[in-house]
Amino acid sequence: MTQADIGLIGLAVMGENLVMNMESKGFSVAVYNRGAEKTRAFLASRASGKNITGAYSLPELCQSLSRPRRVMLMVKAGDPVDALIEGLLPCLEPGDVIIDGGNSHYADTARRAVLVESRGLLYVGTGVSGGEEGALLGPSIMPGGSAAAWPLISPVFRAICAKAPDGSPCCDWVGGGGAGHFVKMVHNGIEYGDMQLICEAYHILRELAGLTPKEISAVFAQWAKGELSGYLVEITADILAAEDADGSPLVDKILDAAGQKGTGKWACVAALHEGVPLTLISEAVYARCLSALCDERRAASTLLRRPADAYRGEKAELAEDVRQALYASKIVSYAQGFALLSAASAAEGWGLDLGAIALLWRGGCIIRSAFLSDIKEAYSASPAPQNLMLAPRFTDILLSHTPAWRRVCSAAALCGIPAPAFMSALAYFDGYGSARLPASLLQAQRDYFGAHGFERTDAPRGEFFHHNWTGRGGDTAASTYTV
Amino acid sequence: MTQADIGLIGLAVMGENLVMNMESKGFSVAVYNRGAEKTRAFLASRASGKNITGAYSLPELCQSLSRPRRVMLMVKAGDPVDALIEGLLPCLEPGDVIIDGGNSHYADTARRAVLVESRGLLYVGTGVSGGEEGALLGPSIMPGGSAAAWPLISPVFRAICAKAPDGSPCCDWVGGGGAGHFVKMVHNGIEYGDMQLICEAYHILRELAGLTPKEISAVFAQWAKGELSGYLVEITADILAAEDADGSPLVDKILDAAGQKGTGKWACVAALHEGVPLTLISEAVYARCLSALCDERRAASTLLRRPADAYRGEKAELAEDVRQALYASKIVSYAQGFALLSAASAAEGWGLDLGAIALLWRGGCIIRSAFLSDIKEAYSASPAPQNLMLAPRFTDILLSHTPAWRRVCSAAALCGIPAPAFMSALAYFDGYGSARLPASLLQAQRDYFGAHGFERTDAPRGEFFHHNWTGRGGDTAASTYTV
Repeated sequence: MTQADIGLIGLAVMGENLVMNMESKGFSVAVYNRGAEKTRAFLASRASGKNITGAYSLPELCQSLSRPRRVMLMVKAGDPVDALIEGLLPCLEPGDVIIDGGNSHYADTARRAVLVESRGLLYVGTGVSGGEEGALLGPSIMPGGSAAAWPLISPVFRAICAKAPDGSPCCDWVGGGGAGHFVKMVHNGIEYGDMQLICEAYHILRELAGLTPKEISAVFAQWAKGELSGYLVEITADILAAEDADGSPLVDKILDAAGQKGTGKWACVAALHEGVPLTLISEAVYARCLSALCDERRAASTLLRRPADAYRGEKAELAEDVRQALYASKIVSYAQGFALLSAASAAEGWGLDLGAIALLWRGGCIIRSAFLSDIKEAYSASPAPQNLMLAPRFTDILLSHTPAWRRVCSAAALCGIPAPAFMSALAYFDGYGSARLPASLLQAQRDYFGAHGFERTDAPRGEFFHHNWTGRGGDTAASTYTV
Repeated sequence: MTQADIGLIGLAVMGENLVMNMESKGFSVAVYNRGAEKTRAFLASRASGKNITGAYSLPELCQSLSRPRRVMLMVKAGDPVDALIEGLLPCLEPGDVIIDGGNSHYADTARRAVLVESRGLLYVGTGVSGGEEGALLGPSIMPGGSAAAWPLISPVFRAICAKAPDGSPCCDWVGGGGAGHFVKMVHNGIEYGDMQLICEAYHILRELAGLTPKEISAVFAQWAKGELSGYLVEITADILAAEDADGSPLVDKILDAAGQKGTGKWACVAALHEGVPLTLISEAVYARCLSALCDERRAASTLLRRPADAYRGEKAELAEDVRQALYASKIVSYAQGFALLSAASAAEGWGLDLGAIALLWRGGCIIRSAFLSDIKEAYSASPAPQNLMLAPRFTDILLSHTPAWRRVCSAAALCGIPAPAFMSALAYFDGYGSARLPASLLQAQRDYFGAHGFERTDAPRGEFFHHNWTGRGGDTAASTYTV
């Protein structure tokens, strides 16, 4: 009996397509699915005549693999992953590798890596991005965990992954513990941000410039040829051109209630935990939550909505303004996302290579775009920029695009078009570039009501002062607030 | 030996002042602090000649209390609370009450309530708001946990708490488990939002209207007499009038790096968990994080900052515009905070009385303001409004203030003044009032790249459709993404 190169568990869309991808690159694959019917159906259809075999139990799967064994899980994040690890451990041997390719939380992955390593095996938690089509034709792959596993899995992963336009594989080792899934989580957060920015651009063009979906499709198709070139901009052009059976724009028949699977929220929680402003992605996550209240919104619209101010600018110029606002906001979003990666890397000791991560996203995944090559280049500078906005190339773009960006936010505010991502990006840009923020007043408030103390501009950092604002109050300082 | 009415552990600023407050209302108090020196110093100074006794061990403290014993912890949240509970349990008897008055996370409180109740005792986790002065003169108190404890603690708590202008005590039972600390957490988040809004108003008046701190102090003093009447607006007037030793505005000598203790972040994490848009408070939390990067900002300002557009509106009218923007944004912030309370109450089965919670915050605490009585009234309507913005009184104010609010956000965008809270509030208002949001495009994108499916406007909710956007792609649907 020939032994398969790799085992894959979980024959949903991503799993099936990854199997087809691996097989097409010359690897033999053994597959297992909890429901045997799914396995049989797959073997009888897409897998028929291919170098793909089925297993109907975990022991059978493990026995069918060459050593060291590589078993990849493509199952729902959470308990199913823990259950499968428990089930696999007795069937595997030291040196074998368990790979979780689902959307697991990075903290779960870090915990599982410790568990699996304690049994002498290797564990990899890897982001796999690209959706249905990416899984089949070449996803972006972001593996992290047991470093010793990388040489064992890289031949498969670097064969099946996407290739950047320059031919380099969109898969490289990210770091230890949960680093792979953390990077994937930030990727997903950035994806949320990119999608929200596109939605706001569409909304403004539709409502303020009065363009039809088909006309906006042409605008996006044009944008896809320039600095905004990328997958999401391209598919938006396709989508807005799509017609329903009756010839009307399909987008108008789609319910405006966005779903989400949680990784965007996780990125925001991680940012709050690290104290890194991830404002744009947070607004994008909240915008999905707000959209989902569609019945509530429709009821509210009759009460809260008033005829909006007409847009007073030139409609012909609005599309170019929106393009610049979108690109500038996108720079801010990535700057925030990479700042989160940088903070987490320092906190966890991952030693993330930010430029290399940009390259991983250059192909295969949903956010792939020309822009990511510019980010890679920005991080190749020595010293690396402290914030992506400070890379000379991006500083120049931000400064040149700022007037248009400001006009768009102003118009959205005046005319009643919600543009939370454009606006939060602009507020962050203006805040980050402010030598002085009104947090001095905020610190005074905290000292006034809570005796928290404040630092002074004319004293060393770390020295705290308390002002007796009222002439009353006690002598106790909040810094003594310990048992 | 006389036995004290209540025991208090932790003699930092809040603890000491609560003890003085309790004693002034006729209760005898036994105190304990981990460091005995602090206890002796307190007894020899502020507690001297008062009905306050010291204990130097937990058993001694518990022996000095009348039954059922009431022991209140005012210590740092986290491990110290768990350690004290462990230490107290052997010294207490069934029916005794442990009260945690610190800023504990609601999930910890829920967990501790289960533990303490399993030992036959009662547990209360209570928010205490009002800072140093509130603790002394009357804080807002938000107790939750073991319902049977309420009759035992209410005589003390309703005596020492703040009284609303109509005389009603700002303390009432909130709900089971961690409800008290959850409500306090949302209170703190709202406090973050209120403070950030005031900072943005100050910043705009200073930078765009060119007013001095003293002039802005007068503006806030004026605002404090109207619909914005409240503690934080009042103290802002005080703060902006305060001078440093050299006669210059003290606020200009305070470092613009805001601190935070975590409860604001917790509120945002809870909102993300519940899927409730808490955009304004999130922006306020992130604004503190951004302010703290003060060296990085000052370096960036030389690169990113360009001379801002001059403000083109009437400076004399700007203050009134800002006032209206502040009030409208504040309504949004509270609407979001109460939406979070409502969602959590439903999820946890707390049965929160939203109007009663507004009343708890009516006196004593940092966010006390006339506005909270209006909220109480809004929630007295039958049926209660689904969102605070839909209460007729607030709808009217929002609609009348919207033009000024839009002008302020537009000016901030055009002139480069960061106003993330004003802007996020406006975007939420416009989004909530939108019958149609561009999430239809977003759902199309998700279906395009991930086969997630979308609902249609002309089909029942819950029925998902997949469009074959490219004419390629497999037949597998993402909904089969299970093992």
